[in-house]
Amino acid sequence: MTWREDLRSRKFWCAILAELLGTLVLVSAVLGASVPGPEEAAVGPMYPAVAVGVAIIALSHCFGEISGAQVNPSLTLSLLATRRLDVLRALVYIAAQCFGACLAAWILYLALPFKTTAEHFVNRVPIELNAAQALGIEVLCTFQMVFTVYSVEDQRRRDSPEPGNLAIGVAHSAGVLIGARFSGASMNPARSLGPAIVTGFWENHWIYWIGPVMGALLAGVSHEFFFARSVSRQKLVA
Amino acid sequence: MTWREDLRSRKFWCAILAELLGTLVLVSAVLGASVPGPEEAAVGPMYPAVAVGVAIIALSHCFGEISGAQVNPSLTLSLLATRRLDVLRALVYIAAQCFGACLAAWILYLALPFKTTAEHFVNRVPIELNAAQALGIEVLCTFQMVFTVYSVEDQRRRDSPEPGNLAIGVAHSAGVLIGARFSGASMNPARSLGPAIVTGFWENHWIYWIGPVMGALLAGVSHEFFFARSVSRQKLVA
Amino acid sequence: MTWREDLRSRKFWCAILAELLGTLVLVSAVLGASVPGPEEAAVGPMYPAVAVGVAIIALSHCFGEISGAQVNPSLTLSLLATRRLDVLRALVYIAAQCFGACLAAWILYLALPFKTTAEHFVNRVPIELNAAQALGIEVLCTFQMVFTVYSVEDQRRRDSPEPGNLAIGVAHSAGVLIGARFSGASMNPARSLGPAIVTGFWENHWIYWIGPVMGALLAGVSHEFFFARSVSRQKLVA
Amino acid sequence: MTWREDLRSRKFWCAILAELLGTLVLVSAVLGASVPGPEEAAVGPMYPAVAVGVAIIALSHCFGEISGAQVNPSLTLSLLATRRLDVLRALVYIAAQCFGACLAAWILYLALPFKTTAEHFVNRVPIELNAAQALGIEVLCTFQMVFTVYSVEDQRRRDSPEPGNLAIGVAHSAGVLIGARFSGASMNPARSLGPAIVTGFWENHWIYWIGPVMGALLAGVSHEFFFARSVSRQKLVA
Repeated sequence: MTWREDLRSRKFWCAILAELLGTLVLVSAVLGASVPGPEEAAVGPMYPAVAVGVAIIALSHCFGEISGAQVNPSLTLSLLATRRLDVLRALVYIAAQCFGACLAAWILYLALPFKTTAEHFVNRVPIELNAAQALGIEVLCTFQMVFTVYSVEDQRRRDSPEPGNLAIGVAHSAGVLIGARFSGASMNPARSLGPAIVTGFWENHWIYWIGPVMGALLAGVSHEFFFARSVSRQKLVA
Repeated sequence: MTWREDLRSRKFWCAILAELLGTLVLVSAVLGASVPGPEEAAVGPMYPAVAVGVAIIALSHCFGEISGAQVNPSLTLSLLATRRLDVLRALVYIAAQCFGACLAAWILYLALPFKTTAEHFVNRVPIELNAAQALGIEVLCTFQMVFTVYSVEDQRRRDSPEPGNLAIGVAHSAGVLIGARFSGASMNPARSLGPAIVTGFWENHWIYWIGPVMGALLAGVSHEFFFARSVSRQKLVA
Repeated sequence: MTWREDLRSRKFWCAILAELLGTLVLVSAVLGASVPGPEEAAVGPMYPAVAVGVAIIALSHCFGEISGAQVNPSLTLSLLATRRLDVLRALVYIAAQCFGACLAAWILYLALPFKTTAEHFVNRVPIELNAAQALGIEVLCTFQMVFTVYSVEDQRRRDSPEPGNLAIGVAHSAGVLIGARFSGASMNPARSLGPAIVTGFWENHWIYWIGPVMGALLAGVSHEFFFARSVSRQKLVA
Repeated sequence: MTWREDLRSRKFWCAILAELLGTLVLVSAVLGASVPGPEEAAVGPMYPAVAVGVAIIALSHCFGEISGAQVNPSLTLSLLATRRLDVLRALVYIAAQCFGACLAAWILYLALPFKTTAEHFVNRVPIELNAAQALGIEVLCTFQMVFTVYSVEDQRRRDSPEPGNLAIGVAHSAGVLIGARFSGASMNPARSLGPAIVTGFWENHWIYWIGPVMGALLAGVSHEFFFARSVSRQKLVA
C-alpha cells in the first residue's frame, strides 16, 4: 500500500488506536504495581515484573492481530530495521505509544493519594551506578525480550502449538527480574517517557531510549542473521 | 428460545448454578487471599492479584462452556448491551452472581478467627482519595479486563491456538495490580456486594457498581465498534 | 482386566510408581516452600500456593498419561466413587501416595537445619478456630480443585485447545489462597499424613482426611450429576 | 554426521551460540533476581524461583528448536547418557554453557553497586547443613526437573496440545521452591560455576556438580526404563 492509502484505511487507524490503548494499559499496570502502600517502602521488583508480564499476555490477545501489540518504541524500531514495518507506520506507532504512555502516567498521577509517591513511577539509575552500567543492563534485558518476540513470530509461521503470547509475557518478567535492581529495567522508552514528563524528572533519561533501542536492534539483527528459519521476510502486518 | 422454554430447560438452570458456584469460588479466593495472618498488616495487592487470576483460569475451565463463566455482573451487563445475552438470562445471572458472592463472604466470615479482620474483605476508597479518582481507576481496570474477554471470544471463533482462559485470568491480575492501591480494584460489583452485606460497610459502595459497569460497557462497545473482526453477532450461549 | 491380571501387568506397577514419585515431589515442593529462612517468621501462603501449583503442572506432564497424576487420596476416592477407577487400583494408589508423602516429609526432615522448624510442615488448625470451621474450609478448597479436575477431563474428551494441566495447577493455587489462613488448605490427606508421622503431631489430623474427601466426593458427584457433558462413563485409566 | 562435518556445518555453530546465549540469559535472570535492594536482607526463594521459571519458558521458545535450549550441563550429560546427544556435541555444549554462565556472572558483577552483595550470587550450603544433606536435596530437585524435560519430549513426539515449555519452566520453579532453603537449589552446574569464578568462592562447589548430574542421570535412566512410551530412541537434535 502507498502511504496515501494507508492514511485512508480504517485498519491503519485501528492499529494506531490499538498501540495507544495497549501502551496505556501496559504503563498503567507497571506504574500501578510500583506504587507502595501508605507508610511502606518501595515494593520490590516482583510487583512490576508480574505486572508487565500479565499485561503483555493480555494485550497480545487484545491487539496481537491488529497492530502486533508492540506497545514499545524499541521493538517497533527493531521491526523497522529488519524491514517488517515501513517507516510511516513505525513513526506513527511510536507517536501513539508515547502518547498512550503519557496518558497512563497522567491518569495514575491524578489518582495518586500522595503526589510525592510519583517518584516510584520514574526509571532512575541508582546513585551508586554510573550510566554505562545502567545502559549495559538495559541492553541485556531488552535483548532477551526482543529476541523472544522474534522467535515467537518465527514459531507462529510454523504453527507451533506452544502459547507464544505467554512466552513474550514471561520474557518481559524475566527482563524486569534481571535488571530491576540495577537500572529499573524499563526495556521500553515509552514507559520511561510518560513518568518523566509527568514528574519532570529527566536525569539520565537518554539511557532508557539508547539502551532499549540498542538491545532491540541487536536482538532483531542477530536473530535474523543467525537463527531465522525462513529467509523470506514477511511484513508483520500487511 | 422463548422465556418460557428457557425456564423449563435443564441447561438454563445448570448455567445459573454455574454462575452461582463460580462467583462463590472467585469471591472466596479473593477474600481468603486478603486475610492477613495473625499480627500481620494487610497483605499487599500481590495476594488478591494472584488469587483472582488463578481462580478465573480454573473457573473458565469449569464453567466456560456452561454459562461463559462470567461471574461478574458488569461483564454480564456488557454482554447484554452488545446483544450477546438476552434480558432474562442477564438478570438471572446477575442475581445468581450476587447470591454466590454473598454466600462466599458469609462462609469466610463464619470461619474468620478474628471478626475484625473482615474489614480486609471490603473494597473501600482510601481516605486520601475522592470518589471520582476511585471511579476513574475502576473504569480503567475493568475496561482492559472486559476488553480482553471480548478479544478472546473473537479469537476463539477463529480457532486460535493461544490459551484464552489464561489471557482472561491474567487480565484480572493486571487489573488488580493497576488499581489495588487506589480503589481496591474490585472490577466486579458482586465481589464488592458480598462483603458489604456481611460487614454492613456501605460507604462509597456505589463506586463499585458504577465504575465496573461503565468500564465494561465502554470495553464492549469500543471492541464491537473498532476491533471486532466478525460482524455477525453470535450469542455467547445459545 | 481382572485383579490378577492387573497385578501381573507392567503398566500397573509403573502407575503405582508414578503415584509414589508424584506425591513425593508434590509434598517436597509444598514442605520445602513452607520452611522459613533462618530467623524469619513463617512465610505467607504465597509460597505454598505457588509451589503446589507449579508442582502439579509439572507432575501432570510427567505422570498424567501413566496414572492420571492424581497424587491425592481424596481425588482417588472421588474417582472411585464416580466409577472411573476400580477398588483395587484406588486402594493401591492411595497406599503409594501415602508412602510417597511420608518419604518426602522424612527426606526434608533429614535435611532440615533446625528440626524445630518441622512444625511449619504440619497442617494445623489455628488456635482461634474450631474444627468445624477448618473442616468447612477444607471442603470448599477441595471442592473447587476437584471440580476443576473433572471439568478438565471432560474438556479433554472434546479436544479443547486450552491447557488443562495449567488449569488443574492453578486450581490448587487458588485452593491454598482461599484456605491457608484458616485451615492450612491441605486439600490432600497424604500431604497432611507425611508431616504428621514425621513430627508426631496428630491434633485434629482427622480434619485433613474427612474435609478433603467430603469436598472431593461432593465435587465429583455434583459434576457428574449437573455438568457432565458425556453420559458415557469412561475409565480414566484403562 | 561425522565430527568433521559437524564442525563445518552452520547449524552446529548456531546451536553452540544458542547454548551460550541461553545460559547467559538464564544465569543473568537468576543472579539479577537474587540481588537484594539497598539495606535489605537477601530476598526469599520466590525471586529466583520465578526468575528461573520465566527465563526457561522464554528460552525454550527462543532456542528450543535450535539446540534444545538445554542451558544446563547436567541435562546435557543426561541426554548424552540416554544416547540422545553424541559426545562431541555434549562436550561443546557444556563448554558453551559454562562460558555463557561466567559471562553472565561477570556482566552482573560489573554492574553491581556494592561488590559485597555478589555473595548473594553464590550457591552455598547453609552453615547448619552438611554436604550430604545438600547433595541429597540437589539430587531431588534436579531429578524432578529433568524427569519433566524427558516427559515433555515424550509428549511432543505424540503431538500433545499441552504447552510443554511451560511445564519445563514451572518444574524449574518447583525445584527452587523445594531446595532453596537447604542447598540453594542450583540444579545447574554452570549456574554455580559462573559466580564461583567471579567471586572466588569455591567451598563445597563440588556438590553443585555431583548433585545435579546424579539427579539428571537418575531421571533420564529411570524415565527411559520405566516410563518411556516409544522405545525408539530418537536423537533430540539431528
